[in-house]
Amino acid sequence: MTDQQTVADAGEFGLIELVTSGLPSSAAVSVGPGDDAAVFTVAGASVCSVDTIVEGVHFRRDWYTADEVGRRAVAQAAADLEAMGAEPVAAVVSLSVPGDLALDWAADCGRGVAAECERAGLVLIGGDTTRSRDVTIGVTVLGQLSGRAPVTRAGARPGDVVAMRGRLGWSAAGLAVLGRGFRSPRAVVSAHKVPEVPYGQGLVAAAAGASAMIDISDGLLADLGHIARLSGVSIDVETARLVVDEPLRVVAAAIGGDPMTFVLTGGEDHALAATFAAPDVPQGWSVIGRVAQGEPGVTVDGQAWSQAPGYRHFGR
Amino acid sequence: MTDQQTVADAGEFGLIELVTSGLPSSAAVSVGPGDDAAVFTVAGASVCSVDTIVEGVHFRRDWYTADEVGRRAVAQAAADLEAMGAEPVAAVVSLSVPGDLALDWAADCGRGVAAECERAGLVLIGGDTTRSRDVTIGVTVLGQLSGRAPVTRAGARPGDVVAMRGRLGWSAAGLAVLGRGFRSPRAVVSAHKVPEVPYGQGLVAAAAGASAMIDISDGLLADLGHIARLSGVSIDVETARLVVDEPLRVVAAAIGGDPMTFVLTGGEDHALAATFAAPDVPQGWSVIGRVAQGEPGVTVDGQAWSQAPGYRHFGR
Repeated sequence: MTDQQTVADAGEFGLIELVTSGLPSSAAVSVGPGDDAAVFTVAGASVCSVDTIVEGVHFRRDWYTADEVGRRAVAQAAADLEAMGAEPVAAVVSLSVPGDLALDWAADCGRGVAAECERAGLVLIGGDTTRSRDVTIGVTVLGQLSGRAPVTRAGARPGDVVAMRGRLGWSAAGLAVLGRGFRSPRAVVSAHKVPEVPYGQGLVAAAAGASAMIDISDGLLADLGHIARLSGVSIDVETARLVVDEPLRVVAAAIGGDPMTFVLTGGEDHALAATFAAPDVPQGWSVIGRVAQGEPGVTVDGQAWSQAPGYRHFGR
Repeated sequence: MTDQQTVADAGEFGLIELVTSGLPSSAAVSVGPGDDAAVFTVAGASVCSVDTIVEGVHFRRDWYTADEVGRRAVAQAAADLEAMGAEPVAAVVSLSVPGDLALDWAADCGRGVAAECERAGLVLIGGDTTRSRDVTIGVTVLGQLSGRAPVTRAGARPGDVVAMRGRLGWSAAGLAVLGRGFRSPRAVVSAHKVPEVPYGQGLVAAAAGASAMIDISDGLLADLGHIARLSGVSIDVETARLVVDEPLRVVAAAIGGDPMTFVLTGGEDHALAATFAAPDVPQGWSVIGRVAQGEPGVTVDGQAWSQAPGYRHFGR
C-alpha cells in the first residue's frame, strides 16, 4: 500500500471493527459492540451524562494527537459521573469523522478513547460512526449508585465547608500558551489537552458524606455559582487557601497576567469541588471556602468578583 | 427585538433552558436535566445505543424543518431499543449547533426531540449543547428488559421464518425524489425525513418469542445479512411476500427504476425484522422469508443478489 488508507477506504464497518477490536469486557456487560444496542447491568440507580467535543471548537488537529482527542473526550464525560458520586460502569461513543481522514488517525483516536475508559473504570460497550466535516466525539457515560443517594448540586448547607480535589487553572494556562503559538510549559499544555480527572475521588467524597458536588468544567467561580444557586446558599472562596502551582506562575509572568485568575476562572481541568460538614472532609481534599446563608452567589475573600467567572460556550 | 435572536445571543445555558423547559418527567427519573448527570432507575438489565445525525450528511437544513431533524434523530436511535426487545426508558441528547443559528431553529429542534421522545416512550433526562460548524445531534437511548433476555442478532435458527413489521423503501424513495429537486409524493418525502418506527412492536416480538431481531437501517438485505452472519444461518427473502406500496411504484416509474430495489435495499425506514418459530409470528407481522442451514448470507427468491445490498456510510 503506497497511499495512506482513509476512513472511506475502510468503510463504516471497517472503522468500527478497528475501534472495537480487543476491547476489555466486564461481567456487567452481556452484549457489547456489534448488535443493535448494548446490554449491561447496574447496581442501584443509574447515572448518565453526555459530553461532546468538536474539532475547531474544543481541539485542533494540529495541536492534538488523535490519542489525546480520544482521551479528552472520555475524561470530561467521566468527570460528570465522579461529580455525582457514582461508580463508573460503561461508555458509548459516537465518532463522526471526514471520509478522507487517515484511518490511522481514527484508529489512534479510538485507542485513546479505550485507554481513558480503562483509566476511568468504564467499559466501552458500543457506539456509532458517521461521516462529518469536523471530527466530533460524543461520549455518553453510565454509572451506578449501588443503593447510595446521588450527590447533586443542590444539597450544600450553611455552615458547610467547600473542599476540592484535583488541579485548577492548568488547562486555561495551557490554552493561553497554545493560543500564543508556544508548546511549553509542557505540563500545562498536556493538562489542557487531556484533563487529569481525580478518578475515584467522587466516590470517596460521597462516602464521606458530601452534601453537594460538581466538577470544575466552566471555572471554579462559575461552577460554585451553580451549587450556590441550586442550593440557595452563598459561598465564599478564600484565595489564601488556593494553590497556585508553579507552572501557572510561569505562564502568567510570561503573558503578563495574574495566575490567580487561571485558578478562579479557568475551566476544563475537571477537578472536583464538594461541600461537607467540616469534620467530614476526606483526606487529600483541601478546604477552600465556606457556605453561608444569604443571597445565592459566590464571593472571593468576602468581595464580589468583577471579572467573568468562567468560560462561555457560545462566545459573548 | 428587530433582528432574529441567535444561539450565541442566548448562550449555552439559555439554549439548555429553552430545550429542557416543560419536559415531562417520570417516576423512574430522580435527577433530570440541570445537574452534572441524570439519575434514573431501570428494571432488569439496561439496554443502550447511540445514533448521530450530521447536517450535510444525513439531512439538509433547506429540506428539513428543525422539528423534523429533532424527531428523526430520536426515532432512529429509539428503533435500536425496539430491535433488542427492550422497553424504552430515557434519552440524553447532544446538540451541536453554529453560534449564528437562529435561536428559534434550535428551540424547534429541541421540541422535535422532545415530541419524538414522547412518541417513543422515552423521557428526555439530559444532554449537552456545544458549538459546531454543522448541526449535529447525537441521541443516546436507554431501555430496560424487566427480567427478559435481549433479542440479539445472533439467535436465528434453521427452520425459523423471517417476519417484519413497518415500512420498507419509503425513505429511499423519498431521498430519490428530494435528490432530483422534487418535494412530492409527500408521503415518501415525509417518510425520509422522519421514519415511522413501529414503536412497541419490538416488545411484542420479544414477548412472542423472537429468536433474533434487527431494525432496518442499512437496507433489508444488508441488515438480514447481519443476522445471517451472526447467527451462522442462511436467509432467503421471498419477493412475492414483500409489499411494494403505491408511492414506491409512482416514484420508480417517474425515475425509471425498479420499486423492488427500494424495498430490498432502501435503508432508514427502521422497520423491524425478526425470526420466529412459524407459529409464534405475532399478529400484524408479515412473513417475508425463511431461515435455513447453509453458508451465512442472504438470497432473494433462492438467488444471489448482485447489486449493492444497502447503504454505505462512507461512500465507496
